Amino acid sequence: MMASNSGILAHYGALMDLPEYSRPVTLLEGDTPLIPVPRLAEELGGGFELFVKFEGLNPTGSFKDRGMTAAISEAAGRGVKAVICASTGNTAASAAAYAARAGMRAVVIIPAGKVAAGKLAGAVAYGAEVIQIEGSFDDALGLVVEISQRQPIALVNSLNPYRLEGQKTAAFEICDTLGGAPDWLCLPVGNAGNITAYWMGFRQYHALKGSGLPQILGVQAAGSAPLVLGHPVEHPETVATAIRIGKPARGEQALQAAEESNGRIIAVTDDEILAMQHQLAANGVWVEPASAAGLAGLAHELCEGRIDVRGRRVAAVCTGHGMKDPDVVIRGWGKPPVLPADRDALEEAILGGRA
Amino acid sequence: MMASNSGILAHYGALMDLPEYSRPVTLLEGDTPLIPVPRLAEELGGGFELFVKFEGLNPTGSFKDRGMTAAISEAAGRGVKAVICASTGNTAASAAAYAARAGMRAVVIIPAGKVAAGKLAGAVAYGAEVIQIEGSFDDALGLVVEISQRQPIALVNSLNPYRLEGQKTAAFEICDTLGGAPDWLCLPVGNAGNITAYWMGFRQYHALKGSGLPQILGVQAAGSAPLVLGHPVEHPETVATAIRIGKPARGEQALQAAEESNGRIIAVTDDEILAMQHQLAANGVWVEPASAAGLAGLAHELCEGRIDVRGRRVAAVCTGHGMKDPDVVIRGWGKPPVLPADRDALEEAILGGRA
Repeated sequence: MMASNSGILAHYGALMDLPEYSRPVTLLEGDTPLIPVPRLAEELGGGFELFVKFEGLNPTGSFKDRGMTAAISEAAGRGVKAVICASTGNTAASAAAYAARAGMRAVVIIPAGKVAAGKLAGAVAYGAEVIQIEGSFDDALGLVVEISQRQPIALVNSLNPYRLEGQKTAAFEICDTLGGAPDWLCLPVGNAGNITAYWMGFRQYHALKGSGLPQILGVQAAGSAPLVLGHPVEHPETVATAIRIGKPARGEQALQAAEESNGRIIAVTDDEILAMQHQLAANGVWVEPASAAGLAGLAHELCEGRIDVRGRRVAAVCTGHGMKDPDVVIRGWGKPPVLPADRDALEEAILGGRA
Repeated sequence: MMASNSGILAHYGALMDLPEYSRPVTLLEGDTPLIPVPRLAEELGGGFELFVKFEGLNPTGSFKDRGMTAAISEAAGRGVKAVICASTGNTAASAAAYAARAGMRAVVIIPAGKVAAGKLAGAVAYGAEVIQIEGSFDDALGLVVEISQRQPIALVNSLNPYRLEGQKTAAFEICDTLGGAPDWLCLPVGNAGNITAYWMGFRQYHALKGSGLPQILGVQAAGSAPLVLGHPVEHPETVATAIRIGKPARGEQALQAAEESNGRIIAVTDDEILAMQHQLAANGVWVEPASAAGLAGLAHELCEGRIDVRGRRVAAVCTGHGMKDPDVVIRGWGKPPVLPADRDALEEAILGGRA
């Protein structure tokens, strides 16, 4: 019998360090597919196995739901009435959904004009109180940290340790599906909570089950690459809005994860990110731009001959669905032709290959 | 160990009537969560169990992927090089993704100006050749049927019987999760392939396993309700674009499913659909408007006293994710305020509850 998704708390709760008083708040997140993409592996040179962990199939369309079920469950357990977060969009939608589920108020602070339409719509739909600020994500994060320390509002950004407890379960799932850790894990790096959580998860599972450890390739966008540059970026810019972050909250831990895993953190250009977004969609998996960064980094390293994956298994984390940011596709695309509702006209367009 | 999603062909293939020659083309669709929504049940009067089968968590964001893995697998097995469909959007994205996966050409014909932005972007992203026509979905469907009969291009609308073979697996999953069929199944009805497929699925599982049969409540939008009116609708209009269909291809079978199940097909207004979309999002599940129709119909019947679900289990099918149609939220919403990046200003807005 197919085990329909029970949510990560029901499945992995025993391995998550949450307080006893937590009250489960779930939307049956997790258990996302690990999609084999053999043709993409060939396109990248071949000779290795490649899988996409498609986190865009979580309830609100991104990996954030794993952390949010944990953070909101803890908050609900101690009677919290309101939560707050800064967001580039995915955290906002996730916090809004889980807070709604728990009957809490959600306040989300976003950088004005810097959040993809599909994400903002989500936060609004789930009933969050959305405030745009004249500033960056990093400004927003600083402000919500301060406010959460002064007011009875719980912080649910990934500085909240329970967020990582939830997010690490994606590493467990990858090991369970493959029967062990992959040789390499590629993923985008923005605020650096996710790379930190994956490394926690792989280490914990390895200690428990001897599942092995991957080398980690963390990938930033070139215009927003503080961990590659070695200093904060005051005005981060990239088409990959989900990782447009200049001062990662978990930067030190990300660098440590890369080093301990014998991996590294690199940067790729927006062109490389968008090219990979298209290449991945042409393989049937449409992700938001940031989500293509991990694979763009893999392609970059393979092209430069700086990584050898022959005979290896590589997993790439795609953090959010393409539907989060339809505009990026629509901007880059010529408007489809409009034809009369006429068979001959259509056949001509189709057979001429000019559709 | 959590069984990561293996796709419906691997899991239910033995129960699907597909030709031997089929070649599996999968994106690991299916195994979507059946989310309990007890608070929504209370809001609707209480005294019954309510579940949402959230089909928006399939790879391209809608239930269409179940049918498409089957239809494209069959087509791939007989060497088809190109597929065609008419679409209000969800079929387009799904056909595009699975055709891309199979290395086939996909041609999708959509009614100009009548497809939600997130859906069109998907079809384009996955590499379909998109043609808009000056006409309705029904016009488009007529044309693609004709073209597929004249040209070497396979039809993948739900007239294709393999589509139903795939879509019926959602009924299997609901039975497996609940340990039997629910007492009522509520779902939106547009082209009527899905209601037909669910009824096929429930009957087949019941014959095999004695899992029981639900009563089926099929719900159309009032401006696009040919099965309620008893005649085709020349110019269907509704905010629920996914079910804006005036001449359902499987209308007869839908009426039969409703009758055989001792259920019915009703219509609800766009206001009822949008109100339920918001109510469901306030419970943590954001769906596209059409997907709220099934629950809007349930609410309508409960309100009118025409259905008694006390002590019963009710499942509602939500066919597509809210991200498919962000515009409908953005249109209905006041723009979030823009404030300076200043703690005092934010605290005032938050504590005043004016965010």
